[in-house]
Amino acid sequence: MKMILIVAAVVGLSVGLAQAQDKTYILSKSDMHVPADNLMSGPGLQEKIDLGRQLFFDPRLSSTGTVSCNSCHNVMAGGEDSVRTSTGVKGQLGGRNSPTVWNSAFHSVQFWDGRANLLEDQAKGPVTNPIEMGMKDHSMAVARLQKIDGYRDSFAKVFGGKASAKDAITIDKVAKAIAAYERTLVTENSPFDRFNAGDVKALSADAKKGWETFQKTGCVACHSGAHFSGPKMPIGTGFYQKFPLMPDANIEKTYGFSKDLGRFDVTKNEGDKNTWRVPTLRNIALTAPYFHNGAVADLSEAVRVMGKVQLGKDLSKSEIKSIVAFLNSLTGEFPKQEMPRLPAYELGLRRLNSISVSLRPDILVDCRV
Amino acid sequence: MKMILIVAAVVGLSVGLAQAQDKTYILSKSDMHVPADNLMSGPGLQEKIDLGRQLFFDPRLSSTGTVSCNSCHNVMAGGEDSVRTSTGVKGQLGGRNSPTVWNSAFHSVQFWDGRANLLEDQAKGPVTNPIEMGMKDHSMAVARLQKIDGYRDSFAKVFGGKASAKDAITIDKVAKAIAAYERTLVTENSPFDRFNAGDVKALSADAKKGWETFQKTGCVACHSGAHFSGPKMPIGTGFYQKFPLMPDANIEKTYGFSKDLGRFDVTKNEGDKNTWRVPTLRNIALTAPYFHNGAVADLSEAVRVMGKVQLGKDLSKSEIKSIVAFLNSLTGEFPKQEMPRLPAYELGLRRLNSISVSLRPDILVDCRV
Repeated sequence: MKMILIVAAVVGLSVGLAQAQDKTYILSKSDMHVPADNLMSGPGLQEKIDLGRQLFFDPRLSSTGTVSCNSCHNVMAGGEDSVRTSTGVKGQLGGRNSPTVWNSAFHSVQFWDGRANLLEDQAKGPVTNPIEMGMKDHSMAVARLQKIDGYRDSFAKVFGGKASAKDAITIDKVAKAIAAYERTLVTENSPFDRFNAGDVKALSADAKKGWETFQKTGCVACHSGAHFSGPKMPIGTGFYQKFPLMPDANIEKTYGFSKDLGRFDVTKNEGDKNTWRVPTLRNIALTAPYFHNGAVADLSEAVRVMGKVQLGKDLSKSEIKSIVAFLNSLTGEFPKQEMPRLPAYELGLRRLNSISVSLRPDILVDCRV
Repeated sequence: MKMILIVAAVVGLSVGLAQAQDKTYILSKSDMHVPADNLMSGPGLQEKIDLGRQLFFDPRLSSTGTVSCNSCHNVMAGGEDSVRTSTGVKGQLGGRNSPTVWNSAFHSVQFWDGRANLLEDQAKGPVTNPIEMGMKDHSMAVARLQKIDGYRDSFAKVFGGKASAKDAITIDKVAKAIAAYERTLVTENSPFDRFNAGDVKALSADAKKGWETFQKTGCVACHSGAHFSGPKMPIGTGFYQKFPLMPDANIEKTYGFSKDLGRFDVTKNEGDKNTWRVPTLRNIALTAPYFHNGAVADLSEAVRVMGKVQLGKDLSKSEIKSIVAFLNSLTGEFPKQEMPRLPAYELGLRRLNSISVSLRPDILVDCRV
């Protein structure tokens, strides 16, 4: 009995050398937001995920057949597209930087302004956004998919009913399959996670210093929690912050952050002007450029800006360098994925290039050669 | 001895039930065109293929960061993009239908007009085509890749030299890696291949009838060989045909095939007016729409058109149906592929959206919102 106690004490001591694991920062799949009508369990789950992956990669979900979910949320990279704002159909540029799809199932609200809750709600948005995927309405998207034998069969298999039925494919089923696939997009085991689990060697000295600075300086006030995007919230309740909180004339002049009113455009509440969902910092080193307008290409500069306009602090070069080292430790492991095979049209895509879209025919004309 | 002869006779009889294997139509990887300085063997081959796959999927090879090789030659589908003509940077539409990348390593010349020989030559074209990937020149593409640590390391590993060297990445190395990846894109074991190898049940009765009609009617005069794209030719020697050979006023009015002068634009030889490389028919059921201008969405209609303008024949509905059944039997097996991971920029892509391109600033302005 005495010996066991001694062993326990020695073990305790050796664990004590590492920082005690902080449960706040543990990425746990059980924290994912999953609706009761689209569970990530049960028979047919893998088929649903596979179908969702096909849809995610299928550019035929856009009016011109050129833009897929993956075009802007590239899962082969950091889950976004490395550009300031994304290009949708007909070369049109969107207004905001694409958020990463990796770990997005953990968000309690979706989009920069939180205008959707579940991934199922989010997935439907870009399809009919005129400058993103440009479908006139959801029935146009569904009609497109209905022309593809392989999809009708897969939807019937996953969601029941007959492949020949009129409602074999619906936009809700499309969204459910895509959301199910997106819930598999989780990056675990980052150096920080290993460090937090007790592996003291997982972080460099500089990254550890950065983690301390990150906490002491106050970054952690907003960027807390398992995704460094605020505390865990119930689905539909966003964790928003004003940005910039303390506008700086030079920074504003350079980056124009305040032009976009953010959540105000959704709620029309005065208090929501320039407020945004606090974004995750996981994999942040892979998701440049930064901020809602993608105006800052460099992570060090993003940290400097945050210190200035959110905390009112001029971070030193050495503080910035350490914080960046810490942020680099938040890059997780990306699971290997098989490429989907996209099912073919029965008879080819009849005159796809000639599909008339209602939006801005002037662009349509001007962009064509 | 006698018994053995009898057995042989019986075996011969049973094989005789199947059509004797016609060697003309055997897809053999040894027929691939591989240059001596980019062999598909030796140490480092897998690394070279993996690097090529990354590059093939990387939209950063285009000026706007939105168009990858895979955008127009989608290997998750039939190796093309299901649209009449492809969309390049800034929503610009190209002039010709994207040929499939599957089995393209067997072509003795590349592009519809044969203006490149090896895949290595082909791969460089779209990068600097102003309406495709829109890079000002190859050095702009190389400079982009040089900014990505992961690429510098991979190129050094595959092609030798130091990752920090100025010539760690060159456009020739880029093309070699992409071509090596493309040489893995082979679809074998189609129902027709199994039939030709002796499996009489691999084709339906209708498909067999179609194969006979295809030969008797004269389709096979051009669409012969292992890829139904003409006889095997030495690299650089294309097998071209005039199309339409016997123009039909109605068909011309509907589809406008003759507007594009094809190979003439390359050679300026009068005899090359409206001539084209004979395209492969492998996986043809997956690569609608058809012809150099993608004007025909339906495979049956494509067969009718071919009968009329190439053979001067009005094929009956039943003949067309059988030929289409045969063409469907040319869909091969697509090897499973792992998605690449695209290496990240060091510091994000500095102001990618603002990169100025020399071509058609009017489009640049008009297409942006």
